[in-house]
Amino acid sequence: MSDRVQRFKAERERLNEIILKKESLDIKRFFALDTAVYREGALDVRTKELLGLVASLVLRCDDCIAYHTIQAREVGVSDEVFNEVMSIGLVVGGSITIPHIRRAYQLWEEMSS
Amino acid sequence: MSDRVQRFKAERERLNEIILKKESLDIKRFFALDTAVYREGALDVRTKELLGLVASLVLRCDDCIAYHTIQAREVGVSDEVFNEVMSIGLVVGGSITIPHIRRAYQLWEEMSS
Amino acid sequence: MSDRVQRFKAERERLNEIILKKESLDIKRFFALDTAVYREGALDVRTKELLGLVASLVLRCDDCIAYHTIQAREVGVSDEVFNEVMSIGLVVGGSITIPHIRRAYQLWEEMSS
Amino acid sequence: MSDRVQRFKAERERLNEIILKKESLDIKRFFALDTAVYREGALDVRTKELLGLVASLVLRCDDCIAYHTIQAREVGVSDEVFNEVMSIGLVVGGSITIPHIRRAYQLWEEMSS
Amino acid sequence: MSDRVQRFKAERERLNEIILKKESLDIKRFFALDTAVYREGALDVRTKELLGLVASLVLRCDDCIAYHTIQAREVGVSDEVFNEVMSIGLVVGGSITIPHIRRAYQLWEEMSS
Amino acid sequence: MSDRVQRFKAERERLNEIILKKESLDIKRFFALDTAVYREGALDVRTKELLGLVASLVLRCDDCIAYHTIQAREVGVSDEVFNEVMSIGLVVGGSITIPHIRRAYQLWEEMSS
Repeated sequence: MSDRVQRFKAERERLNEIILKKESLDIKRFFALDTAVYREGALDVRTKELLGLVASLVLRCDDCIAYHTIQAREVGVSDEVFNEVMSIGLVVGGSITIPHIRRAYQLWEEMSS
Repeated sequence: MSDRVQRFKAERERLNEIILKKESLDIKRFFALDTAVYREGALDVRTKELLGLVASLVLRCDDCIAYHTIQAREVGVSDEVFNEVMSIGLVVGGSITIPHIRRAYQLWEEMSS
Repeated sequence: MSDRVQRFKAERERLNEIILKKESLDIKRFFALDTAVYREGALDVRTKELLGLVASLVLRCDDCIAYHTIQAREVGVSDEVFNEVMSIGLVVGGSITIPHIRRAYQLWEEMSS
Repeated sequence: MSDRVQRFKAERERLNEIILKKESLDIKRFFALDTAVYREGALDVRTKELLGLVASLVLRCDDCIAYHTIQAREVGVSDEVFNEVMSIGLVVGGSITIPHIRRAYQLWEEMSS
Repeated sequence: MSDRVQRFKAERERLNEIILKKESLDIKRFFALDTAVYREGALDVRTKELLGLVASLVLRCDDCIAYHTIQAREVGVSDEVFNEVMSIGLVVGGSITIPHIRRAYQLWEEMSS
Repeated sequence: MSDRVQRFKAERERLNEIILKKESLDIKRFFALDTAVYREGALDVRTKELLGLVASLVLRCDDCIAYHTIQAREVGVSDEVFNEVMSIGLVVGGSITIPHIRRAYQLWEEMSS
């Protein structure tokens, strides 16, 4: 696991803890639901991660893209599949997604080497 | 094929023709690319349609959602899979996607009966 | 209650039923949460409706704006307050929100007469 | 002027009047500013309409696109220029803009015949 | 006032000065209007800040969220109210707002200690 | 050319290379199309850069804004024209664009001195 991935995960964990120690039941419920929808069901976990990835890409949320890129790597998504998800996101979302695609590929590269 | 689906397809076809008879090479290239990214590759056509569907849902584009919902039906996506794609889109995109999810389910229902 | 408001509510109800009779636990949970966050808490119901209204306006979701406009009316929001919420949404979201503001005021007018 | 353009303009006028007869000074100021930025300055009116058009297209606001498409026609924008603005909007905003581009071309056609 | 809040305010001030020393009357008018809509009216300043905060959150603008979070703190918004605004924004805007909610809570924490 | 502009260009180049050495024909085609639409045609290059700039601004993509701001400078856009494009983007996109306008002016300033 590259340094950047580790730092990303640690920071994400730290900030989630700040939120979740708050007494907000609704936010906790949302976080639980956010975990639930990516669990294996009629669709396998890998496909669900790709759905999360392309949704994050077209909405241009760097942290969300980074999260799902890391997840995709960890569940064994191939370079070819990653390219195809990026291509669909690029065509749907337009050139405005390119800076995010650049950062997603940079992270993908770091995890590949 | 329900009446609404047929009308949707006919209208889409008619308007695409207006655009494509224009002498804009760049727009034609984009349309070609828009077809290309959904072709079978490392990912199968069914998964690519689901990616297009969830991307359309979180970007809240009714025509795009209708198009991919029809495509999804035609390539044999099950009710359970459709539910899971809607769930991920809903959690990623928030309650603001609900009116679009309502219309997507209405169309799905019409194609099921 | 004006005809349009009644039709809007009936249609919304009908489509929600289509969704909720599906066996999707995650979507049901989201709908429950979507109800929960607008319940009286540290903030009263009226203020929460205004938050939902301005959020819907800047995200330019007509059905969501119509829903919260109706709710705002029913919990006794005054014309002056409605104007101020529209003004903040307009300045935050820009001229792109104007078509939605037009439709919101049209609905507001219908409920006032 | 086609029927549809006339109806669009009349409805727009009617709804603006509903808004502007309200006692909201801030909304009036915004409307004045919205007119001011499209006035001739260092850039001519035609170029400013094209800027308004492409901004409306990538933000996917049909009413705004229709308004600027009508304006563009009235200040003498050519078919070729219209195509190029649509192309840039399509590439920047992605396939998600296609339904809006379809409707913009349909309106453009109606005004051409 | 924490270091980060002070730096945020100073940087914001410095950049606003760059913009406002430009000879753009329209931009100055917009800035004046942007101040005007948050002034006390039928709604008090506190409620207006919450409206600005939730609008910024669902539009996922970190600088705007930081600004209204600081303002909210300074006009005496409680932890419970802050939680409820975050919850509504999260449900309306979806999981895509979570990275912004993390940063908002981090800033809120810094101002609380 | 300021240091920041040089670094921006070098980083952009480096990341584009990571993407383009991938074997994704569709992404390469999109990049080619993204170059093609800004070439001189019925509209000159300067106007097309302004269209790209205002589209990037209302979509709030900092890297895209920076890119087109640099391009605009290099094709000889004046301060007055830059102000007018920013004004239109600000009015169309709302106060939510202000943080991006701040950064665009900062870059514009750096290139002016």
